[in-house]
Amino acid sequence: MLRVPNTDTRQIPRDDDIVASVHKTLSDWAGSGVNFALVETAGGVHSPGPNGNSQADLYRPLRLPIVLVADSRLGGISSSISAYESLLLRGYDVHSVLLFRDEYYKNHEYLLNYFQKKCIPLVPLPSPPPKPSVQDADSLARDEEAMTTYYGRVAQETDVASLLQQLSSKNAERIDRLESMASRAHDTIWYPFTQHHGMEAKDITPIDSAYDDYFQTFVGSDESQHENKLRATFDGSASWWTQGLGHGNPSLALSAAYAAGRYGHVMFPGNIHEPALSLAELLIESIGNPRLRKVFYTDNGSTGMEVAVKMGLRAACDRYGWDASQEQISILGLKGSYHGDTIGVMDCSEPSTFNKKVEWYRGRGYWFDFPQVKMSQGVWKVEIPENLRESLGSGLEFSSLDEIFDMEERLQSAAGKRYQDYIRNTIQDLVHQHRMKFGSLIMEPIILGAGGMLFWSVVRGHPELFDTSAAKSAKDHPVATSWSGLPVIFDEVFTGLYRLGRKSSASFLQVDSDVSVNAKLLTGGLLPLCTTMASNEIFQAFSSPEKSDALLHGHSYTAHAVGCQVAVDSLQTMMQMENSGSWDGYRQDWKPTRSDSPATLSARDSPDVWSVWSHGLVSDLSHAPSVDGVFAIGTVLSISLKDVQGGGKSSMRFHPRSARSGLTCDVSTAQIGYTSTAARGLQQRLSTSDGEFNVHSRVLGNVLYLMSSVTSQPEALRSIEGLLREALL
Amino acid sequence: MLRVPNTDTRQIPRDDDIVASVHKTLSDWAGSGVNFALVETAGGVHSPGPNGNSQADLYRPLRLPIVLVADSRLGGISSSISAYESLLLRGYDVHSVLLFRDEYYKNHEYLLNYFQKKCIPLVPLPSPPPKPSVQDADSLARDEEAMTTYYGRVAQETDVASLLQQLSSKNAERIDRLESMASRAHDTIWYPFTQHHGMEAKDITPIDSAYDDYFQTFVGSDESQHENKLRATFDGSASWWTQGLGHGNPSLALSAAYAAGRYGHVMFPGNIHEPALSLAELLIESIGNPRLRKVFYTDNGSTGMEVAVKMGLRAACDRYGWDASQEQISILGLKGSYHGDTIGVMDCSEPSTFNKKVEWYRGRGYWFDFPQVKMSQGVWKVEIPENLRESLGSGLEFSSLDEIFDMEERLQSAAGKRYQDYIRNTIQDLVHQHRMKFGSLIMEPIILGAGGMLFWSVVRGHPELFDTSAAKSAKDHPVATSWSGLPVIFDEVFTGLYRLGRKSSASFLQVDSDVSVNAKLLTGGLLPLCTTMASNEIFQAFSSPEKSDALLHGHSYTAHAVGCQVAVDSLQTMMQMENSGSWDGYRQDWKPTRSDSPATLSARDSPDVWSVWSHGLVSDLSHAPSVDGVFAIGTVLSISLKDVQGGGKSSMRFHPRSARSGLTCDVSTAQIGYTSTAARGLQQRLSTSDGEFNVHSRVLGNVLYLMSSVTSQPEALRSIEGLLREALL
Repeated sequence: MLRVPNTDTRQIPRDDDIVASVHKTLSDWAGSGVNFALVETAGGVHSPGPNGNSQADLYRPLRLPIVLVADSRLGGISSSISAYESLLLRGYDVHSVLLFRDEYYKNHEYLLNYFQKKCIPLVPLPSPPPKPSVQDADSLARDEEAMTTYYGRVAQETDVASLLQQLSSKNAERIDRLESMASRAHDTIWYPFTQHHGMEAKDITPIDSAYDDYFQTFVGSDESQHENKLRATFDGSASWWTQGLGHGNPSLALSAAYAAGRYGHVMFPGNIHEPALSLAELLIESIGNPRLRKVFYTDNGSTGMEVAVKMGLRAACDRYGWDASQEQISILGLKGSYHGDTIGVMDCSEPSTFNKKVEWYRGRGYWFDFPQVKMSQGVWKVEIPENLRESLGSGLEFSSLDEIFDMEERLQSAAGKRYQDYIRNTIQDLVHQHRMKFGSLIMEPIILGAGGMLFWSVVRGHPELFDTSAAKSAKDHPVATSWSGLPVIFDEVFTGLYRLGRKSSASFLQVDSDVSVNAKLLTGGLLPLCTTMASNEIFQAFSSPEKSDALLHGHSYTAHAVGCQVAVDSLQTMMQMENSGSWDGYRQDWKPTRSDSPATLSARDSPDVWSVWSHGLVSDLSHAPSVDGVFAIGTVLSISLKDVQGGGKSSMRFHPRSARSGLTCDVSTAQIGYTSTAARGLQQRLSTSDGEFNVHSRVLGNVLYLMSSVTSQPEALRSIEGLLREALL
Repeated sequence: MLRVPNTDTRQIPRDDDIVASVHKTLSDWAGSGVNFALVETAGGVHSPGPNGNSQADLYRPLRLPIVLVADSRLGGISSSISAYESLLLRGYDVHSVLLFRDEYYKNHEYLLNYFQKKCIPLVPLPSPPPKPSVQDADSLARDEEAMTTYYGRVAQETDVASLLQQLSSKNAERIDRLESMASRAHDTIWYPFTQHHGMEAKDITPIDSAYDDYFQTFVGSDESQHENKLRATFDGSASWWTQGLGHGNPSLALSAAYAAGRYGHVMFPGNIHEPALSLAELLIESIGNPRLRKVFYTDNGSTGMEVAVKMGLRAACDRYGWDASQEQISILGLKGSYHGDTIGVMDCSEPSTFNKKVEWYRGRGYWFDFPQVKMSQGVWKVEIPENLRESLGSGLEFSSLDEIFDMEERLQSAAGKRYQDYIRNTIQDLVHQHRMKFGSLIMEPIILGAGGMLFWSVVRGHPELFDTSAAKSAKDHPVATSWSGLPVIFDEVFTGLYRLGRKSSASFLQVDSDVSVNAKLLTGGLLPLCTTMASNEIFQAFSSPEKSDALLHGHSYTAHAVGCQVAVDSLQTMMQMENSGSWDGYRQDWKPTRSDSPATLSARDSPDVWSVWSHGLVSDLSHAPSVDGVFAIGTVLSISLKDVQGGGKSSMRFHPRSARSGLTCDVSTAQIGYTSTAARGLQQRLSTSDGEFNVHSRVLGNVLYLMSSVTSQPEALRSIEGLLREALL
C-alpha cells in the first residue's frame, strides 16, 4: 500500500511531483510483479493536499479507479453521494464503495440500494471498536487486542478476497475493452475526413481519458516497451484547434453541469435565458469591433459561416437591388480558404481536388492568391506567390513580426499599393468584363489573410467597383456605421478567441468586419457552439413586414444553455488570463528590441505579435539545414521542411482546407499520396519520444504543425522545443 | 421560518405534494407581506426526504436560493465543497455559506478563500456550547442559559443583519436582472427564424430555469395577477421537439459532467473513445435496421442531412456512372418537407416562399404530393390532396391507426396500387421526358410520409426507372444487402428515438433505409448531436486508393464526448422505459378492440400505434363543431380547427418547414400574415390557464400542436386534455 501525501515536512513537494512520484512508484511495482496496489489518500475527496488543492484534482492526471470509502455517520448518506458526484464530474470511475455498518443510521442500506442502481458494488464492514479514551499502556494493549479481534471479524464477515477479485476483474475488463476498442471502432465508425480504404484497426488510437494538454492513449502490450498500458501524449493539434483551457477541466465540467441542471435545453425563439444573454453581451462588449451588435447562435463553424453568407448576400442584394433568383451572386475570397463542409460554405472555396468530387459542389466566387509570411535564415519574409511576381515584384524582408503587422505602414508602402492596384484591377475586370456580381468578401483575417487589410481597403474604399447598376448607392451610407463596397465577413473560427494570442484576430489587421464568426475556442475546447456576430445594418437588411424576409435559419439546440454557460466561463477565464498578465513571459520573449521602443510591457494593447513558442526557437530552426521556413503566432507553430526527396523548394503555404482533409496523414500513409519524408520523420520522432510524454502533431505535405492550449505549461513547451532542436539542429 | 419535511407521521405526503405545499406556504406569506423566509431542510443536501429521494432533487422544482450550511468538523472541507458541487449540478444558486468557527480544523478559513473565488460570501459563526451529556432538569436549565449566552454572542460577533441584507439584495438583483432581460435580449440577440420587424421586448419571455416539463417563466409584476414573479409553463413544444427526459435532468447533467471531466473534447479522426464507440454500437444494435452498419457523427440535423445527401448522391453516381460535375443530380422528395437550414439541405426542399429568398437556394429535385392522415367525426381518414384526386380517387376510411399502418395490406390495396402507378409514371416521365437524373429518395418516414412505404416500394422495386445509361446495373447487387433503384434516406431527426413512441419511426413502415439520420431526442433533450447511419454498401462507395474520394466532411467537435455520453445514457433510459412497460398504460388506451385480437399487450413489437394523448380525447375532439381533424401519435398531438373567418375548409397538412419558420407566431402576430383566429384563440387560452400551470404550444395556420416529453406525467397530460375539452367541446 502506498500512503500519500509525502509526509516529509522539511519541504512540501509540488503537486506535479507528488503525482509523478506516485506514478513512478506504481509503475515500478507493476514492473516488479506487484499486481495489486492501493493508493490511500487523506481525508475526503476534496480534502486539501499538501499544497492546498483538492486531492480529487491533484490526483486527476492518474485517474486511478476509485474505492470510495463512504460515511456511516449522521449525514453520511448525503456526504457520500456528494463525494461520488464530485469524483464523477472529474471523470473518475468509482469501482466499489466501502463503509462501516452502523445499525442505527443504516447508511449502508440506503447506499447499497443507491449504488446498486449504478452497478457499483458496496461492501459494508463491521464497525471498529471505539477508540480508547485514555492513552495509557493498558488501554493501548486493550485496544490492540480489540483491533485484532476486529480484523478477525472483518476477515470472517466480509469477503475481502472477492472484493479484491472484483476490483481485479474490473481492471481486466477495462484493459480488454481498451484492447478491443480499435477493432470495434474500425467496424462501426465512419470517420470524418478519412479515406477508410486500407485503414486498419491498428491505425486507430484508443483514448482512455485526457487531462490538461495530454491524452492518455492506450499502447497495446505487444507494441510498447513501457510497463504502462497508458501513455501520456501531448495534444499538439489542440484537438482540431479547439482546445484552450485543458482537457477534463473541472471548472468547465461544473459549468456544463450547472447549466444542464438549471435548464437542460430550452427553446430559444421568443425566449431568453441567462447564459445566452450573458454570452451575447460579453462578446459584444469585449470583441473590440464596435460594428458588431447582434449575435446569432448556431452549432459549429460551418453552420455559423452558412449564416454569415446568408447575411452578407442579403445585405448586398438589398443594397444593389439584385435578384439572386435570376443571377448568380458570388463571393470574393482567398485561395486555399476553408469555411466548413456544409455545401453552402464549400461553395465559398475555389474548386480543388478536395471539393470537386462532392456532387453538389459549385464554387461560387473568385479567389485571390496572396503573399505568405515566414522566417527564413533568421529573417522575417513576406513571400509573393510565383504567379504574382510579375505584377507585385519579389518578396519583402522585415525585422520583426510586429513590423509585418504594422498595417498602416504596409498599406502606404510601394508594395502595398502595387498589391491594392492588382486587387482593384482584377475586380474591375471580373465585374465589367466577366459580368460577375459579388455579394461579400469572405476571409480568415490572419494565417491565410495576413495581408487581409489590403483586400479590405480596396473593397471598402471602392464601392463603385461592385455597384454596376443604378440601384441605391453605397455613398448614401455613412462609412462609420455602414459597410461599403461589400459586406466583409471574417471567418475567425480557427483564429479567434486567443488562438493567436488575442481575443480577436481581426485586431491584428485593425479592420472592423461587418460579420464575424467564432467557434472552436469559444467553449474553451469542450463543446460545439458558434456565434455569428453582425452589424445593425446587416441585421436591418432582413427587417420587413414580410415574415419570409427574415433570416430563415435555426437549429433545434440554438443557444443551448450548456454551451453558452461554458462559453461565458471560458471567455472570462481567458480574458482574466490576459488581464492578469499570464502570457507576459511570452510577450517579453517576443518584444522586438527596437532602439525607439524599450522592451517593456506597458502598452498591452499595442499590436504586439507573440507566441507561446519561443522566438529563439523560431530563429534557430529557421537556420537549420533541413528547414525552409518557420512561423509562429499565439499558440501556433509551423515548420516547413525542405523536401530532400522531391529536390525542389517547397512552399510554406498554410491551407486550412488541406489541413482538415489531410487529417488522416498519420492514420495511414499509404493513401494520402505524396508526403514529405522529412516532415513525416520529424512527426514520427515526436510521437515516439523517450521523454515523459509523446507529442501528437499534424503533418501536411512538408509542413509540421504544433499547437498548444492557452494554459499549456511553459516547461512542457520548452521540453517539446528541446525535441525539435534535437531533431533539426 | 418554514420547517420541512412534514412531520405528520400518520401519512407520508408525496414529494410533489410536499413541494406544492412549500410553494403555497411561501406564496401565501409573500402575499401577506412577509419579505423574508427560510426553508430549513433536514440533514445534508442529499439526505433522503420522507419518500427516500434526495432533498436536493425533491426541492429542485422550486430552485430556491441556497444558504449552504457548511461543515466545520474533520472532513468538513471536503463534504462542504462536494455538497456545493451537488447543488450546482442541479442548477441551484448558492447565495451564501454559513458554518461554525472551529479553531482547530479552521475549515472556515479554507472555505472562506474557496468561496470568495466564486463570489459567494461565507459567514463563520461562533461554535455553540456542547450538548449536555445528561438530560436532567438541571442540565437542561444550564443548557438553556448557555444557549441564551451563545445567541447573544452570535448577535454580537456576527453581522446577521448584513447577512440578511446581502440575501435580500441578491434577490433584488435577481429580479432586476429578470426584469431587464427581455429588453437586453431585444438589443443583442438575432433570433433564429424570426422576423424582428415590429418585435418588441415584451414579446420575449425570460426563462429563469426549467425542470421536468416546465419552464419557470418570468411574469412581470405589472402583468401578473399572481404574487409569484415566476410561473410554471408546460413546455408543450418539447423545446423545438428536442425534449425527452425532462429539463434539468440531474442524471443527464451528471453524465455530461462525467464526460467533460474524463475527456473534455478529444479530436476524433484516427482516435476512439468510449462514449463515441458505445453510442455507435448501441445504435447499430438497437435501431432495428440490419442495413445500417456505420455511424458518422455531426452536430445537428441539418449537418447530418448534408452528410446523408453527400452519401446518397455519391452512391448513385458511383453505381450509374454519372459525372455530377457535368450534370445536375436531383433528389426525389415529398412536398412540404424540411431537412434543415444549411444551403445544401435547403436545396432538398421544393421552392416556396420560405426558401426562395435565400440567395443561394436552388431547389434540386422533384417533390411528390401525398395523402394525409387524420381523425374526423370519430373516423380515421386518409385524405387525398385535391390535385391528385383525379388520378387517385377520393379518400379512404379506416377503423384504427393500426389499420392505416398495416403496410402490407395498403401496398396490396387497390388505392395503394393506384398511388404506386402514379409514382412510377411520374418518375418515368421525369427521367425520360424531362431528362432528370435522381440520386436519392429523401423523406421523413412518418408525419410527412405515412404513405412512405409506397414510395420506397416503387423506388426499390423499379431500378430500371433510374438507370437510363448502360452503366453498372442495379441487378448485379443482391437486394437483401444492397440498395436498389435509389439510396433511400430517412430523415428521422424529428420523428426518431421515441418521439412517435418507437425507437425508429421507420419501423412503422417496415422499411429498411440505406441512410438514416437521428438528432433532437438523441441526447434526451440536452445538447446538439447528430448521427448519420449508413449501410456498408453506401460506405464502400467512398472507398478508393484516392484520399479525395473519401467523405470530406467533419466538424471540430465531431463525436464530442459530452454529447455521446449523454446520448448513451438517454437512449438507455428510454429503452429501459420501453422494456419495463412505462408506456403500457398509453398502449392499452390505444389498443384497437378487434374481434380477432384481444386487447392484451403481449406483442409489444407489433405495429401498434399509440399516443400519450388519450384516444378518447382524439375521438371526442374530432366531433367538436370547430374541429376539422385531429391526429396523435407518440408524444405528438395536432388539432386542426375550422377557420370561421376564412369560411373555407382548411387542410390538416403537417409542414415541418412551416412549423419551423412559423415559430414566431406567438412572438408577434402582426408579422406572420394570416393565422386562424380559432387556433390562436385556443393557444391563448392554454397559455393563460387559471390552473396550476400555463401551457406553451405552437400554432401554425389553423393547426395547434402539442408535444410532451417521454417522461411527462399522465396527470399533467390529462389536465391539459381537460383544458382542451373545456375550450372545444
